Amino acid sequence: MAQKPSIPKGTRDFGQIEMARRNYIFDTIKSVFMLYGFQQIETPAMENLSTLMGKYGEEGDKLLFRIQNSGEKAALAPEKGLRYDLTVPFARYVVQHREEIAFPFKRFQIQPVWRADRPQKGRYREFYQCDVDVIGSNSLVGELELIQIVEEVYRRLGINVCLHLNNRKVLAGIAEVIGAPDKMVDITVAIDKLDKIGVEAVNAELAERGLSAEQIQALQPILNLSGTTTEKLAALRTILAQSETGLKGVEELETLFGMIEATGVKLNIELDLCLARGLNYYTGAIFEVKALDAQIGSITGGGRYDNLTGIFGMPDVSGVGISFGADRIYDVLTELELFPAELQSATRVLFATFGQAELTYALRWAKALREKGVAVEVYPEPTKMKKQMGYADDKKIPFVAIVGGNEMESNTVMLKEMGSGEQKQVTIEELCTIL
Amino acid sequence: MAQKPSIPKGTRDFGQIEMARRNYIFDTIKSVFMLYGFQQIETPAMENLSTLMGKYGEEGDKLLFRIQNSGEKAALAPEKGLRYDLTVPFARYVVQHREEIAFPFKRFQIQPVWRADRPQKGRYREFYQCDVDVIGSNSLVGELELIQIVEEVYRRLGINVCLHLNNRKVLAGIAEVIGAPDKMVDITVAIDKLDKIGVEAVNAELAERGLSAEQIQALQPILNLSGTTTEKLAALRTILAQSETGLKGVEELETLFGMIEATGVKLNIELDLCLARGLNYYTGAIFEVKALDAQIGSITGGGRYDNLTGIFGMPDVSGVGISFGADRIYDVLTELELFPAELQSATRVLFATFGQAELTYALRWAKALREKGVAVEVYPEPTKMKKQMGYADDKKIPFVAIVGGNEMESNTVMLKEMGSGEQKQVTIEELCTIL
Repeated sequence: MAQKPSIPKGTRDFGQIEMARRNYIFDTIKSVFMLYGFQQIETPAMENLSTLMGKYGEEGDKLLFRIQNSGEKAALAPEKGLRYDLTVPFARYVVQHREEIAFPFKRFQIQPVWRADRPQKGRYREFYQCDVDVIGSNSLVGELELIQIVEEVYRRLGINVCLHLNNRKVLAGIAEVIGAPDKMVDITVAIDKLDKIGVEAVNAELAERGLSAEQIQALQPILNLSGTTTEKLAALRTILAQSETGLKGVEELETLFGMIEATGVKLNIELDLCLARGLNYYTGAIFEVKALDAQIGSITGGGRYDNLTGIFGMPDVSGVGISFGADRIYDVLTELELFPAELQSATRVLFATFGQAELTYALRWAKALREKGVAVEVYPEPTKMKKQMGYADDKKIPFVAIVGGNEMESNTVMLKEMGSGEQKQVTIEELCTIL
Repeated sequence: MAQKPSIPKGTRDFGQIEMARRNYIFDTIKSVFMLYGFQQIETPAMENLSTLMGKYGEEGDKLLFRIQNSGEKAALAPEKGLRYDLTVPFARYVVQHREEIAFPFKRFQIQPVWRADRPQKGRYREFYQCDVDVIGSNSLVGELELIQIVEEVYRRLGINVCLHLNNRKVLAGIAEVIGAPDKMVDITVAIDKLDKIGVEAVNAELAERGLSAEQIQALQPILNLSGTTTEKLAALRTILAQSETGLKGVEELETLFGMIEATGVKLNIELDLCLARGLNYYTGAIFEVKALDAQIGSITGGGRYDNLTGIFGMPDVSGVGISFGADRIYDVLTELELFPAELQSATRVLFATFGQAELTYALRWAKALREKGVAVEVYPEPTKMKKQMGYADDKKIPFVAIVGGNEMESNTVMLKEMGSGEQKQVTIEELCTIL
């Protein structure tokens, strides 16, 4: 045989079990999105390069896959590229269709994206993103609903999580009140190491990052924040008294925590001032969700942004969104063995037959069962029983209904439960009840 | 504002209603596939060019979109291309994963494909294909199940269809017995015009296509075939008595029609010797499904092939498959107004509020309703009532629950049915019952 064909590095085939599991994740997430009135859109895999270029920084431009028409135009420079994320196409969609859209616009989108990254473990050149956003409203109900969605999605998937919550305005306020407004990111990154390296080492790092001794001194109340969320917020109010932005951030957090309590959210939520995700992008709330029982980093994240569509000339469109990391959720569900066993096989029973007449008999039974909504297969040939049983084994089908002359005469099948190996003769009514 | 951004020609954005409708089509088809034990796979959007080139003829090679890595390698010739159909990636998948696959392999695949075709009405450069195949078995149970799937899919979608059935071996047999084995396609194409242009004109065309007077004479019994399917098959048996291949084809058709009858298939099925679809590819059954109440051509088609994986060095893998044309099914459902009204909006009720306290009250009700599985939205701000109602109108949400001070006091909402404009005050229990 010729050399086995292969696929481009960094891409994947998804076989039947992987697909069933991926569909389980996406369907779960989708059904929760829909409970909150979010609606799905899809955009083309290819966008004009003018839409994509310059939106992801210089590094990002290099990671775009460009598309060449074949045929006569092959010599021309590419004008199209593959979608790099779902955010820029979403912004392009909103601007292009703004007359048809009812704002606030609640949309979700589940599609693959492509990046010419160096492939490595857990990093692919084609992977799905799963984004949900509400745009065109400043209301913190957006933040609340995303938190409720996180709660419900992970409740349904059975994953224990903690949602880390921060607010970019609070971080900006901190930098402002200690007199280092340009050091917001440095401060946040250094604080993030507090648990790991201790307060002395953090202070040393802050000095290294160019903060003066007074500034570091002024920051100590932040490093020493403790107590309940309410207590922390109260302390922040005092510390940030001189920063309008900072106080606005505290107020947003207070309002949001108020709504969280009023609506009985049970999710584990932690006010986390170290959360530095997307600071050159987010303008209000910042979210990150971590699985408590798996060492895998963030499995969902997002935040509030004030200018999604500015890049396409439509300013002042505020929104808030989060993105579910399907590949990481897949890994967590695998590690914790949380995928439902039914995903192994949709087929409940395989009919295995000893001859042509039995095959026709089985096809009639199969029809009756399918009409009741039971997924059924009929082994297509009355071949060796071992081969037919092997097929059920390989596909992890839980029951085999064996049909020979005796069964046809008595209008039954011999039902074998593949797990236990137990067999019994059953009528079609009995079979329906069992399945 | 800057110039509106746009998408590459021949590509489409799918908005919320289009997506809901497309999902309805795909979910319907998928759930029927699964009743028959077919399982989903996905392959990457990009394949190695070596996998794609030479598989679609010279014309096809020109229509491949090639992919260029950005960055330093830009100068090199592209090594990857976008998927052009689902068949070649499927063949590649089977050969690459043959050790893991349980044969007969029943798979379906619903993914976009890309072709650098000249865009025109109804022809896109990105479109979804929806293929279902069983490979690794010669059994006609494959053909039967695909026919049953067609019946059930279109029953669920509410589209009246006729399935046209032919067999490539019968066509080859006809060409053989009239002594023109190389003229199979010419004969089939000419016969196809019988209804439109009459027997004289068909005979003239056959002469033009190089058939001798005797050959045309010998073909007349085929042109005159009439009666029931059983009668036609009996006549073909006589006509094709000298062709082994032809008789094999008749036998396949007889067996298949026997199983169709034995399993009570109600689908409108027509033996159609003019069906010339994919003759350089199919080796047995050929299917084509037409909507009876819409002028749109074929909405599903397929057939039996004997050598899917030969192109990748794995010979003798027989299979049978069909492909559902999602765009055309979409058009038929639109034309015949068969899309369920619920697809307009998943959200059943919008809460509209007069103030901040009412908003919190509405968020609590929303939580309770969502816990019962009802899709609910809360307008995120207590803004002008007209604006909130306009949002419900735009999103075609059937009910609005209005919350003011009175409602909060009496623990109710004022429920407005948007269609009739009727309003009444209801408790949460009453609301649950109505929704």
